[in-house]
Amino acid sequence: MTSARRLVAEGLGTALLTAVVFGSAAMGAALTEDAALGLLVSSLSTGLALFVLITVLGPVSGAHMNPAVTLVFLMRGEIPTGAAGAYLVAQALGAVAGAVLAHLMFGMAWLEWSGIVRDAPRLWLSEGVATFGLVLVILGGIAAKGPVPALVGAYIAAGYWFTSSTSFANPAMTFARTLTGTGAGIRIDDLAPYLVAQVAGALVAAVLGRWLFAGEPTPR
Amino acid sequence: MTSARRLVAEGLGTALLTAVVFGSAAMGAALTEDAALGLLVSSLSTGLALFVLITVLGPVSGAHMNPAVTLVFLMRGEIPTGAAGAYLVAQALGAVAGAVLAHLMFGMAWLEWSGIVRDAPRLWLSEGVATFGLVLVILGGIAAKGPVPALVGAYIAAGYWFTSSTSFANPAMTFARTLTGTGAGIRIDDLAPYLVAQVAGALVAAVLGRWLFAGEPTPR
Amino acid sequence: MTSARRLVAEGLGTALLTAVVFGSAAMGAALTEDAALGLLVSSLSTGLALFVLITVLGPVSGAHMNPAVTLVFLMRGEIPTGAAGAYLVAQALGAVAGAVLAHLMFGMAWLEWSGIVRDAPRLWLSEGVATFGLVLVILGGIAAKGPVPALVGAYIAAGYWFTSSTSFANPAMTFARTLTGTGAGIRIDDLAPYLVAQVAGALVAAVLGRWLFAGEPTPR
Amino acid sequence: MTSARRLVAEGLGTALLTAVVFGSAAMGAALTEDAALGLLVSSLSTGLALFVLITVLGPVSGAHMNPAVTLVFLMRGEIPTGAAGAYLVAQALGAVAGAVLAHLMFGMAWLEWSGIVRDAPRLWLSEGVATFGLVLVILGGIAAKGPVPALVGAYIAAGYWFTSSTSFANPAMTFARTLTGTGAGIRIDDLAPYLVAQVAGALVAAVLGRWLFAGEPTPR
Repeated sequence: MTSARRLVAEGLGTALLTAVVFGSAAMGAALTEDAALGLLVSSLSTGLALFVLITVLGPVSGAHMNPAVTLVFLMRGEIPTGAAGAYLVAQALGAVAGAVLAHLMFGMAWLEWSGIVRDAPRLWLSEGVATFGLVLVILGGIAAKGPVPALVGAYIAAGYWFTSSTSFANPAMTFARTLTGTGAGIRIDDLAPYLVAQVAGALVAAVLGRWLFAGEPTPR
Repeated sequence: MTSARRLVAEGLGTALLTAVVFGSAAMGAALTEDAALGLLVSSLSTGLALFVLITVLGPVSGAHMNPAVTLVFLMRGEIPTGAAGAYLVAQALGAVAGAVLAHLMFGMAWLEWSGIVRDAPRLWLSEGVATFGLVLVILGGIAAKGPVPALVGAYIAAGYWFTSSTSFANPAMTFARTLTGTGAGIRIDDLAPYLVAQVAGALVAAVLGRWLFAGEPTPR
Repeated sequence: MTSARRLVAEGLGTALLTAVVFGSAAMGAALTEDAALGLLVSSLSTGLALFVLITVLGPVSGAHMNPAVTLVFLMRGEIPTGAAGAYLVAQALGAVAGAVLAHLMFGMAWLEWSGIVRDAPRLWLSEGVATFGLVLVILGGIAAKGPVPALVGAYIAAGYWFTSSTSFANPAMTFARTLTGTGAGIRIDDLAPYLVAQVAGALVAAVLGRWLFAGEPTPR
Repeated sequence: MTSARRLVAEGLGTALLTAVVFGSAAMGAALTEDAALGLLVSSLSTGLALFVLITVLGPVSGAHMNPAVTLVFLMRGEIPTGAAGAYLVAQALGAVAGAVLAHLMFGMAWLEWSGIVRDAPRLWLSEGVATFGLVLVILGGIAAKGPVPALVGAYIAAGYWFTSSTSFANPAMTFARTLTGTGAGIRIDDLAPYLVAQVAGALVAAVLGRWLFAGEPTPR
């Protein structure tokens, strides 16, 4: 059975990550009218938080904090099915708890439906690309014995900018985003295609990564 | 007896850290009217300073530079009671000295009472969360044999943004903040609940961390 | 024969790098009127992407993603001529594919001729210096057994600012820049002197680097 | 005799560092009217350049690129007097050459006297503190076996903000700053007290560092 310690790590990590994304969106919106500056502080905060959380919680649970990542590790046989299911529940609960925490820290309603419309093919393409890249970075980073926490943080910080959707790339957090009044939100009506695009991107990356990172390393 | 070298390291480190926080607040305010940009330069400067100071002074004194951190190490039996008390004095004196230094570098009065009101439950919650996270990162970073100086710097840089209080998370520096005319200040009347929230957050993290980071690491 | 895996890595890496450069230019332009802020987000995104892509793809193909880099390794006898030619084709195709991807993610035309005039000796000097520095950093980083992915990312992020051309420093991506409606573009008429300057800068750095980094390291 | 390779490394490194400081000042001023944003891009570019240059050139010459640093190593007996003198000449020539390079890349006069007045005790105090901190970080970083290139880059990036003088902290570059029309300049009349403050700060740090970093490391 999956240990409680691992599930707490997944839930706590996803909660803190979500609090960073939503809280920094609230703070940026409160302090500036320049939308790029607001997004800059969110992208830096999120990237730094990923670096920290994956480093600290990685040895406990792997620090997936993302159902798309758990799905890929399930496909690769690196996590049992039951544990993967428990991870997903912990991630979803953690994301919602993190949303509540951020809202309370900024004096907002515990939860509220987001009214932000995100409904266009270019956004779905962006989410597919964003999650594809995230999984590729994780698999490639592991294969390269690279600094995975820094790689993921750097990738997502850049992802805010090179995709038109700002790279949600995480089904659990995307779900929680339907429940926030901050600028990080998404209308519940627009949720489904985001999730489909994210899972599709992750699966393509899992297949490509299995081939691309299987070879002997090139001598430098 | 605690060596003079360790106490000088604690005092000097806390002084330089405080000078960075207050000085960058003064510089930002002087150069821009955009509050988010001012906070951005403070968050980056503080994060970088923590990375540098903990790396350089860590081997000398542990580079706590924060009574909440010293308290946690005291609870864990990693520092004797007498040394912890001496650390706290050095940290408090260092924070005030750093405030004076920053004020002189920016042509301000040596010390002056802050008039900035910070008096709301959402701010106290933020300080509790901020210090909880700081202690969790330190304990988790040590358990993971991670790069603690970079983790703490990254965490605090993000903390400026995801909490509504900008993550003071340090009782010694919070005390010195009552004595500054920069935007980093806090009214003396508002000091007590900040300190209570910080200590409470640290204690919760110490208890949780003892359990969460005690297990065998997950094989990746 | 060069393995398909290596060529896919070169093409995919160049595509993603180009998508980051063009996508972040589109995002910045959409969100702010401050040109410096727009360039800041591009410089940070590009630097982070280089760190990630070189770390992840380096063990597969060396992660040149740049014909000037491949040319230098060809001169040094570290890649066979046939493989170098195949790399160049993969890089050029990848850059154009990445341009298309960025344009689709931002709802723009697949490809369009850039109308941005970049035609002045100071820009050519800048491109020569930018590519000289890039090659010097790569050769020096390898000689120093340093963290080459982080060095290249940091160098290019700074390069956006200390050269007046914003440091294209990459013939494949410069070619693709003739085909974008984003602010990252360059008019096809202005392409040739950019390519000449880039290759010249790379060659000077290759010669200097062979001498400068050949000695025994200084004991610290 | 000091090898030509080392002197070229010192001169080239100081030239590129100066080009980054002056070039980024020119670029920032051209793109934004927000002084804080202009200083932000300079601080990030300079910090990143220090990380890169010290990593790459450190094994060749030690990558001092700064007479105050060379002076401290001379006092510590880690460089012979004749070599130190040659280093200073290379640094001064390199700084002026870097100034010329930056000016040409931005279409400015090769060299011109700066008219920027920097004449106040708070600025001299700032330069003393800035150089004190720089030397302390270098000595402490070496003692801690830390990542000195990243520490110096991070320290100087923060130094732009926590001192009112923006932390020149380098006599060779301060001299070259009298010869630039960019915002990085300083009037020749104001040069002397800056140099005195920088040398004084370096000497104090050398003495303090010898004592502070001499002890046995604290077990964590």
